[in-house]
Amino acid sequence: MLTDNPTICAVATSGLGAIAIIRVSGPDTFLVVRQIFYPADVKLKIESAQPYTIHYGTIRSGNLIIDEVLVSLFRAPHSYTGEDVIEISCHGSPYIQKTILELLINHGAIPAKPGEFTRRAFLNGKMDLSQAEAVADLVAAESEASHAVAMQQMRGGFSEKIKELRKRLLHFISLIELELDFSEEDVEFADRKQLSSLIDEIYALVENLRDSFQLGNIIKNGVPVAIVGRPNVGKSTLLNAILNEDRAIVSDYEGTTRDAIEDTISIGGVIFRFIDTAGIRETAEPIEKLGIRRTYQKIGQASIILLLAEAEDDMELVRGSMEVIRQQITVCSRQSSFEKVSEDSAGKPRSPGLETGKQLVLVINKSDKADKSTKEKLINGLSLLEKEHVIAISAKMNENIHELKNLLLNIVNAGSMKHRDIIITNIRHFNALKSASESLIRVREGLGSSLPADLLSQDIRETLHYLGEITGEVTTDEILENIFRNFCIGK
Amino acid sequence: MLTDNPTICAVATSGLGAIAIIRVSGPDTFLVVRQIFYPADVKLKIESAQPYTIHYGTIRSGNLIIDEVLVSLFRAPHSYTGEDVIEISCHGSPYIQKTILELLINHGAIPAKPGEFTRRAFLNGKMDLSQAEAVADLVAAESEASHAVAMQQMRGGFSEKIKELRKRLLHFISLIELELDFSEEDVEFADRKQLSSLIDEIYALVENLRDSFQLGNIIKNGVPVAIVGRPNVGKSTLLNAILNEDRAIVSDYEGTTRDAIEDTISIGGVIFRFIDTAGIRETAEPIEKLGIRRTYQKIGQASIILLLAEAEDDMELVRGSMEVIRQQITVCSRQSSFEKVSEDSAGKPRSPGLETGKQLVLVINKSDKADKSTKEKLINGLSLLEKEHVIAISAKMNENIHELKNLLLNIVNAGSMKHRDIIITNIRHFNALKSASESLIRVREGLGSSLPADLLSQDIRETLHYLGEITGEVTTDEILENIFRNFCIGK
Repeated sequence: MLTDNPTICAVATSGLGAIAIIRVSGPDTFLVVRQIFYPADVKLKIESAQPYTIHYGTIRSGNLIIDEVLVSLFRAPHSYTGEDVIEISCHGSPYIQKTILELLINHGAIPAKPGEFTRRAFLNGKMDLSQAEAVADLVAAESEASHAVAMQQMRGGFSEKIKELRKRLLHFISLIELELDFSEEDVEFADRKQLSSLIDEIYALVENLRDSFQLGNIIKNGVPVAIVGRPNVGKSTLLNAILNEDRAIVSDYEGTTRDAIEDTISIGGVIFRFIDTAGIRETAEPIEKLGIRRTYQKIGQASIILLLAEAEDDMELVRGSMEVIRQQITVCSRQSSFEKVSEDSAGKPRSPGLETGKQLVLVINKSDKADKSTKEKLINGLSLLEKEHVIAISAKMNENIHELKNLLLNIVNAGSMKHRDIIITNIRHFNALKSASESLIRVREGLGSSLPADLLSQDIRETLHYLGEITGEVTTDEILENIFRNFCIGK
Repeated sequence: MLTDNPTICAVATSGLGAIAIIRVSGPDTFLVVRQIFYPADVKLKIESAQPYTIHYGTIRSGNLIIDEVLVSLFRAPHSYTGEDVIEISCHGSPYIQKTILELLINHGAIPAKPGEFTRRAFLNGKMDLSQAEAVADLVAAESEASHAVAMQQMRGGFSEKIKELRKRLLHFISLIELELDFSEEDVEFADRKQLSSLIDEIYALVENLRDSFQLGNIIKNGVPVAIVGRPNVGKSTLLNAILNEDRAIVSDYEGTTRDAIEDTISIGGVIFRFIDTAGIRETAEPIEKLGIRRTYQKIGQASIILLLAEAEDDMELVRGSMEVIRQQITVCSRQSSFEKVSEDSAGKPRSPGLETGKQLVLVINKSDKADKSTKEKLINGLSLLEKEHVIAISAKMNENIHELKNLLLNIVNAGSMKHRDIIITNIRHFNALKSASESLIRVREGLGSSLPADLLSQDIRETLHYLGEITGEVTTDEILENIFRNFCIGK
């Protein structure tokens, strides 16, 4: 009964909720499900029922009732996967989920691999590859900003534009390759000027998308923030003050409460990630042992550096620290050009800085203890001398913590974050764009030096290949394996 | 716009799966959802769409697309709650779940309390109270046996029978209370003989249900098994051998993999719970310190006691241990009559023994090391002398572990476990049945001693009250609060 595409099944929800959804997709979906589903309306035959309808009944194993369920019917091609699909809504018990899966498998379905539903949606033309990839990002989205990026990509986003430009480029290459057939006659079917302007247009888009990658990563993974300062200045108290205010909001909706992600908060829809906080917690460690090296590392990883000092601290020492950090920032920005973006061992690109560069914020803690004149003198003195942001807080008294958060958000918003409409977040896209960019430069050079059509054609083919990789118009099993193995099962 | 029953909403799935289901129920369901749901078919108005249909579209917050979703429509009274219900199937991201809930709340819905959907189903007559309680048990069911008990209860089970007998008893009481109006005339409208036989019938059912409670608890919470024996005999190795074989099976279906419940396994559809295993792990502790007290405690809690010994152990010592355990079993069974069933601090009834009493199994470990004759001598000698079960295994070599599991299952099956068709598992039901039983005995005594109608009526009213508490025909807000606060949100 199995065709090339076997019928697959998986639990699409997770854990033990009140209800669970089991998805079945493939040519035998109705055949498999009708053997275990007994509609309450005994006259009903699901295989002849209307699509987009819901039916109540029982799932049975022989005479044994496993559960009372609702089944939702979808018919190819009007379903998520483009195949016949049935979703079984059952009670969320582990026993019921397991038993229904077993029944489906015993009646001819096979367990779905991670991302297999979305993979089929792609293969059946329901979405392009970048849209399919966005589905996983959407499911994982934790903040307003990362959600917006994933949603825009899932709804077509940049891939529509790439597809259109690629199509126009395909038209040119067919003309150029036609020239090769008439190579003796030295004709030009492809208007070199029009081609050149198309290449410029594509190059501009590619560069624009590449530029957005740093920002996209910040949105996806959070803005890395480092809290640095001498021992016992109150770094961990500050971190807790920042995090705690947020926790109360998160737990407002019990239904969505989840394991708190340590040291990550969302402010105004942007995720901030406090890096290397394990180190921050160990403030008892002597500074000699801790070394300046760790501070340098943090600065290297961070987009925003919070230098924590006390109102009573020696202003010269504080200024010295700021100087050290500022030097370190300069070193970092020399190292972190675009060409250096690379993946760390976990496969994630290293944290890039904000597009406006790393930002230093001087945070004066324990301002509750300092008398007013000390505080003002300090702040005024520093503000006049430095260009960086300065803010006085009391982590312990929860004073100005909200203002500090707003400052963090303003720093991000001052970057071009909000001004972009298209953002890429995917290292695979970034790498394909980089290769496309390189081949486009060669095409442009070729056009400038009137390169023969056969060589020109080769470079254009390369551009077409890399652009096609992004949208999935060009793809390999290996690429698909890599993409979908990171999906969850049931998606 | 809000009526007495506000429209409620909650996430009905849990955690971060590929998809999540958000449930909305109440008179304003369609009014609330139509403000945030934009059907792909722009001509569609969900408020006039057919029930049991599914519609594709987007959830929007102003112009911002929050997600592409499917909505399933149900209309009162043909829904789970008996009210208008919409289920929104969205992507499982925390941000999306939280935002859709916020939107629903901003448009007039309120967050559902735990169990509120099922509570409304009960209040709207979609199910009786024992059925509603079974829903929570069904969601939590982890084994075939506990699932079967919960499913039977959810589909009516014993409550149908109770309702029918209660109805017949109601008929009698109306006749008896009519007699009161004619008390001067000494008439008997209610046939005392028929009443007596009805009382007997009810009493038999009540006692039968009460008897099933011990068993029901074992099914629900697992058969408690204690592994006892001298230090270093291999108790923790044995436990791991028993548990590990099972783990491999569990992980077969990745979609349903869940956090393993420490030291609990399902054998042949029955859950076995290894008690006080923290103690077992600390085998290095000297026996003097550990004391015999802990062993006694375990025996008190267990239905099955596995006494672990080595083939080379002194047989007299082993026999001595068996004697001690057997004495302890006798002490326990004297203490554990039905009347003593009580709740521990966690609100669960204490583990009762099997209906056939506690069972002792002598397990001879390290049988791989013993030569054949030693082993046979030991086993034969013990088998001849004792009535208890004896089995030789090697925990380390995984020898006979499967047979040991079968032995555990056989012990349970030898009890009346499989021979009951109606089983109660709920302490609330047990307590109501106990009170009903007491009042029934008084009614019977009253009938025997020709008690005046007014006193007889009082005892019958009490029986009616307690039976009605089980089915929910008699109920209070307090009872409902207690029941539904233990539900999960979204059910």
